[in-house]
Amino acid sequence: MSEPTPHKVTMEKIVSLCKRRGFIFQSSEIYGGLGGCWDYGPLGVELKRNVKNAWWRSVVQERDDVVGLDASILMHPQVWVASGHVENFADLLSDCKACKHRFRADHVKDDKCPDCGGELTAPRKFNLMFRTFVGPVEDSASVVYLRPETAQGIFADYETVQGALRKKPPFGIAQVGKAFRNEITPGNFTFRTREFEQMEIEFFVKPGTDEKWHKDWLDARFAWYAGLGIRKDRLRLREHAKDELAHYAKACFDVEYLFPEPLGWSEIEGIANRTDFDLKQHSKYSGKDLSFFDEESKERYTPYVIEPSAGADRGSLAFLLDAYDEEEVKGETRVVLRFHPDIAPIKVAVLPLSKKETLVPTAREVHAEVRRHVMSQYDDAQSIGRRYRRQDETGTPLCVTVDFQTLEDKAVTIRERDTMQQVRVPIAEVTSAVRQALDGGWSAVAETYPKVAGKE
Amino acid sequence: MSEPTPHKVTMEKIVSLCKRRGFIFQSSEIYGGLGGCWDYGPLGVELKRNVKNAWWRSVVQERDDVVGLDASILMHPQVWVASGHVENFADLLSDCKACKHRFRADHVKDDKCPDCGGELTAPRKFNLMFRTFVGPVEDSASVVYLRPETAQGIFADYETVQGALRKKPPFGIAQVGKAFRNEITPGNFTFRTREFEQMEIEFFVKPGTDEKWHKDWLDARFAWYAGLGIRKDRLRLREHAKDELAHYAKACFDVEYLFPEPLGWSEIEGIANRTDFDLKQHSKYSGKDLSFFDEESKERYTPYVIEPSAGADRGSLAFLLDAYDEEEVKGETRVVLRFHPDIAPIKVAVLPLSKKETLVPTAREVHAEVRRHVMSQYDDAQSIGRRYRRQDETGTPLCVTVDFQTLEDKAVTIRERDTMQQVRVPIAEVTSAVRQALDGGWSAVAETYPKVAGKE
Repeated sequence: MSEPTPHKVTMEKIVSLCKRRGFIFQSSEIYGGLGGCWDYGPLGVELKRNVKNAWWRSVVQERDDVVGLDASILMHPQVWVASGHVENFADLLSDCKACKHRFRADHVKDDKCPDCGGELTAPRKFNLMFRTFVGPVEDSASVVYLRPETAQGIFADYETVQGALRKKPPFGIAQVGKAFRNEITPGNFTFRTREFEQMEIEFFVKPGTDEKWHKDWLDARFAWYAGLGIRKDRLRLREHAKDELAHYAKACFDVEYLFPEPLGWSEIEGIANRTDFDLKQHSKYSGKDLSFFDEESKERYTPYVIEPSAGADRGSLAFLLDAYDEEEVKGETRVVLRFHPDIAPIKVAVLPLSKKETLVPTAREVHAEVRRHVMSQYDDAQSIGRRYRRQDETGTPLCVTVDFQTLEDKAVTIRERDTMQQVRVPIAEVTSAVRQALDGGWSAVAETYPKVAGKE
Repeated sequence: MSEPTPHKVTMEKIVSLCKRRGFIFQSSEIYGGLGGCWDYGPLGVELKRNVKNAWWRSVVQERDDVVGLDASILMHPQVWVASGHVENFADLLSDCKACKHRFRADHVKDDKCPDCGGELTAPRKFNLMFRTFVGPVEDSASVVYLRPETAQGIFADYETVQGALRKKPPFGIAQVGKAFRNEITPGNFTFRTREFEQMEIEFFVKPGTDEKWHKDWLDARFAWYAGLGIRKDRLRLREHAKDELAHYAKACFDVEYLFPEPLGWSEIEGIANRTDFDLKQHSKYSGKDLSFFDEESKERYTPYVIEPSAGADRGSLAFLLDAYDEEEVKGETRVVLRFHPDIAPIKVAVLPLSKKETLVPTAREVHAEVRRHVMSQYDDAQSIGRRYRRQDETGTPLCVTVDFQTLEDKAVTIRERDTMQQVRVPIAEVTSAVRQALDGGWSAVAETYPKVAGKE
């Protein structure tokens, strides 16, 4: 594997850009924020939608062996007993007997409080699931949890989905949705948060074929990130050591991305072989037989599960960081987010060269036509150079400029973000040229239309 | 207004169809379900995604005056103090002093318990927000709420979004997301649930222009439902009477859909003029000035807000019910969901006439090509007639059939769901014919290609 390309971005820079340009900022900022919760602004919400839609397209639309699901966040509490979360999804915490502050046992070195020097209690289990109460009475019978993972919704619905669609292994169920963990120490921007969004697949296979399917999913998921533009030298698969594995897992690999320091190589997706643990647990606790009878081979078995579990927030952050570039242009630093067109929040910006009334109607018409097909932004504020820079900084692949010559030749300039090349395209062909550039790459468009001299 | 078309569907029928075909079913069903929570299966998740995407396209992509947002579900608790929810978002409940059961005060006629005849307490306020605790200590300082509406996330982020995008009123912020209410009596399938998804816009305008904008949004939102195929005679706008209005609202209209009995005319979207109540409350509680200074007119004002607030679950249910039709075909009852193509979960089914090996490779190829563009399903189980019926019942607009003649003429049959007309289309033109039928309507396709005799 080649040496990773060094980042030109730091976490501080990306946090600042995200706030300033409306990608991502703290939840409830006007009240001082809420730790571990982040909001996606106008550009961030488009970025994250694109990531989630690209994932859905890849795993549901373009495959015949995966179907979708959207289970509720609140589920029957017994789900979390069966899954083992009520018993085991916990950190060990110690309390200070003097000042009552609480610490993760693995974060304090001795038995004295880091805040006041008081004596600490012996470590006790603290469950990371958020609890609430459903119905009007707060008692143990009505306690429910905010799901700490979307996976269990798939297992709980396995029988209903399998029955309704008469699916036979190998097949999978995919889900995108929020999950919640009461992390003691959230941090690193949107990397470790209390509220986050997962993109998970549970893929059910016949025991004995599980290792082959695990390998297939590792390849497919690694290729997905690379196909959407993340540099391969900043991606790796890391196999879990035996002592890292959950007790039910036969094997697990993380897709890791090389984040800037201090994070470094860190997980953006985990791909585990969970064996038949989950279906057997839910069979046991629900009393429903979740084994599968194969009519052809006359065999009965409980399917093994391969679980590619991706973080939509971590993925979005990796796409943001990896897209970030800086270069010198005309003696100034150009910041550009080199997003893959499928991921870019805004695909096209339509810019009248000036606010003159002669240009505006045509620019508005072009914009109205383009936005029927893709996300387009109309911008007429400040100089054309500053508007290009602004679009570069938010990763817009194409700028369409309406200038005074347009009134004569009925053509516009299309400028490409990465090369800063410009070509002249008849207004009637703008939509098809835009589609060609976004779907098939810029070079075909650059070859078809006359280049405009110079770059910007 | 014309008399509403009577429904051929009942709530029982749609609940049964939804369960059987994998649209919607109870959450955690294998554990007996969780009241007021529902899961969307493989077809339901596509339906709801289509509804949400059509909404986003209509209000964000196709407008220049609305931007998107995705705020977190957990927010700073002060948000809900400022909004009035901590104080006022409550039902009045009475407890039975004997059996301890709890009742909504407006559901019990006298002061005796309906269950045991015991004496009831005086009504007390019961807040409908779900509470949980963030961080490792459960005390009042760390209480947070699951948001009971997405609207307040928009108000809390108003200043950040407005600043990052330099937006001036009139402009809006749109958001899709989950909200939670601890309803005492959820019911009517997905109509009243404890966990639900909203599609909300807060549209900020200059005071004095609010009535005009309210009218514009009423027209736009009514037209959206009708444009996606809901019968106009089952839609109406109903103005709230003065005594129905929230204390801060200047006016409010509901978009109502005529559900089957017992629901009847019921709200699927509320469109309120919320005045400057919310921004002023958040100014007061956060200490941040949320008024706007208009550079052109040199006026300072706190924007008024028009709020079109739609339910994604109620909307999806209305689309399902309205699409439902039954008709007599060849002496049998055909059930068909006449979804608008944009809403239909699966757009195309590719069906080899038989499982014979001669047909399968071609059918697989056609399917692989079609699914690059739209949701397509490959189905080779049972007779062709039963497969058509199955696709009708889930609302698939087009069936592409590969038959023995295909091997000779390199053409396939495309059958349209509503008319059951069939045309013969060369394989090379299937994708363009499918796109034409889905985007422009069937009639153009029916005129272009030779009809196949008979209907089915």
